[in-house]
Amino acid sequence: MTTTIRMLFAYDGTGFRGWAAQRDPAVRSIEREITAVLTEVLEEPVRLRAAGRTDAGVHARGQVASFRTARNIPPAKLRAAINGRLAADVVCLEAAAAPASFDARFSASSREYRYRIDTGDVPDPFTARFVWHREGRLDIASMRRAAQRLMGEHDFTTFCRHPGHGRATVRDLQRLTVAASGPRVELGFRANAFLHQMVRALTGTLVLVGDGKLRPDDVAVLLANRNRTGTGNLAPAHGLTLERVVYGRRARP
Amino acid sequence: MTTTIRMLFAYDGTGFRGWAAQRDPAVRSIEREITAVLTEVLEEPVRLRAAGRTDAGVHARGQVASFRTARNIPPAKLRAAINGRLAADVVCLEAAAAPASFDARFSASSREYRYRIDTGDVPDPFTARFVWHREGRLDIASMRRAAQRLMGEHDFTTFCRHPGHGRATVRDLQRLTVAASGPRVELGFRANAFLHQMVRALTGTLVLVGDGKLRPDDVAVLLANRNRTGTGNLAPAHGLTLERVVYGRRARP
Repeated sequence: MTTTIRMLFAYDGTGFRGWAAQRDPAVRSIEREITAVLTEVLEEPVRLRAAGRTDAGVHARGQVASFRTARNIPPAKLRAAINGRLAADVVCLEAAAAPASFDARFSASSREYRYRIDTGDVPDPFTARFVWHREGRLDIASMRRAAQRLMGEHDFTTFCRHPGHGRATVRDLQRLTVAASGPRVELGFRANAFLHQMVRALTGTLVLVGDGKLRPDDVAVLLANRNRTGTGNLAPAHGLTLERVVYGRRARP
Repeated sequence: MTTTIRMLFAYDGTGFRGWAAQRDPAVRSIEREITAVLTEVLEEPVRLRAAGRTDAGVHARGQVASFRTARNIPPAKLRAAINGRLAADVVCLEAAAAPASFDARFSASSREYRYRIDTGDVPDPFTARFVWHREGRLDIASMRRAAQRLMGEHDFTTFCRHPGHGRATVRDLQRLTVAASGPRVELGFRANAFLHQMVRALTGTLVLVGDGKLRPDDVAVLLANRNRTGTGNLAPAHGLTLERVVYGRRARP
């Protein structure tokens, strides 16, 4: 009999080439390091599934991953064992048994990302790893008007770096908030799923709006064009964090 | 005619071997990097004075440094010029002309440090560089009683790593606060000046009290002994931040 385990991870993505394991074993990836540690502890091969395959330099406070195991280790014990072996920049926050059908990727009903911007005149070395420092005020009201044009179910090809042949490009952007507090601007995104580099492309475009280089209505035109022009002003990876993955009632233990 | 310039710096100390420049130019120090950049911009040798010569791995949000220059560059312009050249882990927050007699070290009337501890069962990768993760609850009430025994003017030899021959070891510990919020415990220190590794030695001892290994009264005995036993349980450097330097009325512009 196998058990399905669901784990919650947080990581500082600075030192990783993203979630997904690369062919070259010298390239640090979150997936490779967690898989190696789980395999060592469980003494059996492990195949991880993640809710969001974050890009190089992107962080997570609430990444969810799942796997099946033939071993019968209490999840809390497993969590302690892998945290004792993982590097300091990745940590397992929770571990629990899940329904057999649970799959961190396919069971997820939505993902929440947050993009953090510092518009002050000097960067803050204490948050520099997690916040994009970009000097100069942003027009928050215009950014919010542009955000209104982007919300809802759309074909987001304009804001997708590599859609892949024949891949679906329609996503439901359920929430896009723009919050400002002093020099800090934070963009909150929630969608059923995101296309490749979609959050960073949307952020880059909203910053152009905040900067007066695009009008909110231009964003609606860009979206309707569906020709990937929106990836021209990609916001850097390090300002982005996967905050939370939401699962429907069926996926709950 | 020379001008005295006073600057406020913040830095992530993780990548530095402390404030003070070492003989070996390959060793990163905050003093060396700032001095090099100022010398380049001002095109003249610069001698920096700092309020607190922070140790390897210790951070600062409010380090103050001063120097004299024969050049006549507006301080705001100088700040922008050096921030454009400094690495991302150190930043100049403010620059201003100061009275000719101003000396960041000798004009300072007190220094404030903060030591951050995370007692939760898993470390947080987002704060790991600036917070000491040390699993297990601490008895805050006992730590506060011990802190009471330490406040005031005392010979702090017990909590000094290298006093130096014939150096004064009496300091006035004006404030020592113990604050707790969930798994986070923060110790706030304010003194006219601190001995070498004094904050980390006091923190290590207070943690032994919080852990039940020492009683508050034992700390008073240790202090009276004046034999450097207090440096046995030195808290790690990375939890410590120089928050603020206070100057008396005379030192103000």
